[in-house]
Amino acid sequence: MSAAPHFNKIALIGFGLIGGSIARAAREQGLAGEIVTTARSARTRARVAELGIVDRVVETNVEAVKDADLVILCIPVGACGPVAQEIAAHLKPGAIVSDVGSVKGAIVRDMAPHLPEGVHFVPAHPVAGTEHSGPDSGFAELFINRWCILTPPAGVDPGAIERLRAFWTALGARVEIMTPDHHDLVLAITSHLPHLIAYTIVGTADELAQVTSSEVIKFSAGGFRDFTRIAASDPTMWRDVFLANKDAVLEMLGTFNEDLSKLTRAIRRNDGEALFEHFTRTRAIRRGIVEIGQDSAAPDFGRPHAHLGKKA
Amino acid sequence: MSAAPHFNKIALIGFGLIGGSIARAAREQGLAGEIVTTARSARTRARVAELGIVDRVVETNVEAVKDADLVILCIPVGACGPVAQEIAAHLKPGAIVSDVGSVKGAIVRDMAPHLPEGVHFVPAHPVAGTEHSGPDSGFAELFINRWCILTPPAGVDPGAIERLRAFWTALGARVEIMTPDHHDLVLAITSHLPHLIAYTIVGTADELAQVTSSEVIKFSAGGFRDFTRIAASDPTMWRDVFLANKDAVLEMLGTFNEDLSKLTRAIRRNDGEALFEHFTRTRAIRRGIVEIGQDSAAPDFGRPHAHLGKKA
Ligand SMILES: NC(=O)c1ccc[n+]([C@@H]2O[C@H](COP(=O)([O-])OP(=O)(O)OC[C@H]3O[C@@H](n4cnc5c(N)ncnc54)[C@H](OP(=O)(O)O)[C@@H]3O)[C@@H](O)[C@H]2O)c1
Ligand SMILES: NC(=O)c1ccc[n+]([C@@H]2O[C@H](COP(=O)([O-])OP(=O)(O)OC[C@H]3O[C@@H](n4cnc5c(N)ncnc54)[C@H](OP(=O)(O)O)[C@@H]3O)[C@@H](O)[C@H]2O)c1
Repeated sequence: MSAAPHFNKIALIGFGLIGGSIARAAREQGLAGEIVTTARSARTRARVAELGIVDRVVETNVEAVKDADLVILCIPVGACGPVAQEIAAHLKPGAIVSDVGSVKGAIVRDMAPHLPEGVHFVPAHPVAGTEHSGPDSGFAELFINRWCILTPPAGVDPGAIERLRAFWTALGARVEIMTPDHHDLVLAITSHLPHLIAYTIVGTADELAQVTSSEVIKFSAGGFRDFTRIAASDPTMWRDVFLANKDAVLEMLGTFNEDLSKLTRAIRRNDGEALFEHFTRTRAIRRGIVEIGQDSAAPDFGRPHAHLGKKA
Repeated sequence: MSAAPHFNKIALIGFGLIGGSIARAAREQGLAGEIVTTARSARTRARVAELGIVDRVVETNVEAVKDADLVILCIPVGACGPVAQEIAAHLKPGAIVSDVGSVKGAIVRDMAPHLPEGVHFVPAHPVAGTEHSGPDSGFAELFINRWCILTPPAGVDPGAIERLRAFWTALGARVEIMTPDHHDLVLAITSHLPHLIAYTIVGTADELAQVTSSEVIKFSAGGFRDFTRIAASDPTMWRDVFLANKDAVLEMLGTFNEDLSKLTRAIRRNDGEALFEHFTRTRAIRRGIVEIGQDSAAPDFGRPHAHLGKKA
């Protein structure tokens, strides 16, 4: 493992779940002489100042990136192109410019053309998150044992890639490098399609004529509540993800629909054997996820339980 | 709230997640003079005896129900008809016969014809569970603050219904009464369809040519891992649920497919506004679920996190 890197100044543009978690972890690990941040709204900037996690909160993106050795855009995917354009002329030569966007092809397409020679563009995506957002939602442990995927364009300085790898490693993450296109396919199935399906079924439940919303809510412990968690994620972030990763999402959706038709047919034909075979096969993936520590083995994700008072 | 009831002898047929949780909670609450149980396999019976939670483990269903005041079938839905037939002649007059099956129409159809006059048939479904099964998976707290739905056929003795209600209340549950058909519609959307979709997408991910299983597993923290939990549930139980609740599941699936087509069309047409509007609407249901205590408000279901060692 590489030694923890040190940056004189880190600029975080955007301070929500991801920006706020990076700030907290980077400060805890002492990775920067100074952490400077900004956010779009005065309200968020005021809250960040109040939280006292970063060294300085500034008013503008341009001011934030001034003299920074590492600049990370922690904003919705659709906002990254315009912000890259805005800050381009103000970047310090030799700076590393990165992001945390959940889509990578579109980020490279939108940001790269604006960035000047002499800065190192290394796009990144930490595969970690919760359903919460905003300046109070971050925490230093978010990235521990999660993967962070880097998708450096061809020709980027290997030293810059290594420094960013060491940075994410110091935040607790494991780092993997792949192409933007492959990233977008992998995330389409491991993240984007699950979110789309969860948003769909929660919407379906909300609109049913036969079952009231109050019943859906009361009896949600049968499985439905798991879907509502990810369908409570930030609408702006997810709108941008689906628009930016349209092709890969539509491709995965095609395969999913075929598989759903197959299972539907098995139900319609009372084919218990086909159902049993399918339901047996899907357990292996869960075991793999628990084995490599990407989820808890505790039942029900380890959800808290109340206790029965002894009445006897 | 009704006073905790007391039964001289409770018979639990089947000792998995649900039977085992009822046994643990009923013993903790002192609801029975004697709890007797049995299971299909000698292996499970031996394990239950070893656990020492119940008073007696017997070899056969017939032996278990002898002189019992409350008999609860805690076995897969498809097994309830044959077991009802097997025990019918051996039930004590005045006994309450119940079950815990996740489908209710089929249970009434399959069990009721076998049961003799003079026993009280009150089907039940505790809407609570985890992805684990078997004799070791149960715990006394499983039913606390969860709903248990009773679907007594017309004409059942109200006193028997009240005693079963009081029993579930003593286990920590809240009790609601509805018709079997309405139960099956409600559960189709809050439980059966979510499981079907989770089983589908986990299967899809498993078979992709473009993305390896190892990648799916590594990057599952983007949302996919939530689906793998319910797709790791017992295959026999779920095969039986889909066969027994076919009509309601197919009906909900029809609506879900329409809604998924609508969102797919919005993605294809770059209609960010439609996506944003949908993603905003689905947050309300999550809030409702958290507000009435059917899920934890902690981010990520309160999944455990490791800590960053201070390196600075
Ligand atoms: N949430 C996750 O689970 C997760 C996981 C991995 C990666 N990501 C990626 O991380 C990025 C940020 O997500 P997040 O969850 O941290 O979001 P968040 O909590 O909603 O925070 C977003 C931040 O971006 C700022 N912002 C929003 N729109 C902007 C715009 N048009 N121009 C400039 N700044 C803008 C917001 O400022 P105001 O507060 O002033 O509005 C806020 O500081 C997204 O690209 C997302 O794809 C998210
Ligand atoms: N799991 C949940 O989340 C949940 C929630 C609510 C309701 N339910 C319902 O509760 C019931 C039991 O589920 P569970 O999760 O407790 O299952 P489980 O942990 O797999 O236990 C099932 C029990 O039934 C016995 N059994 C299996 N097949 C049988 C057969 N053909 N004849 C007689 N006994 C048989 C098993 O005996 P052996 O161990 O000897 O095989 C075992 O003792 C099901 O009807 C299910 O729909 C489940």
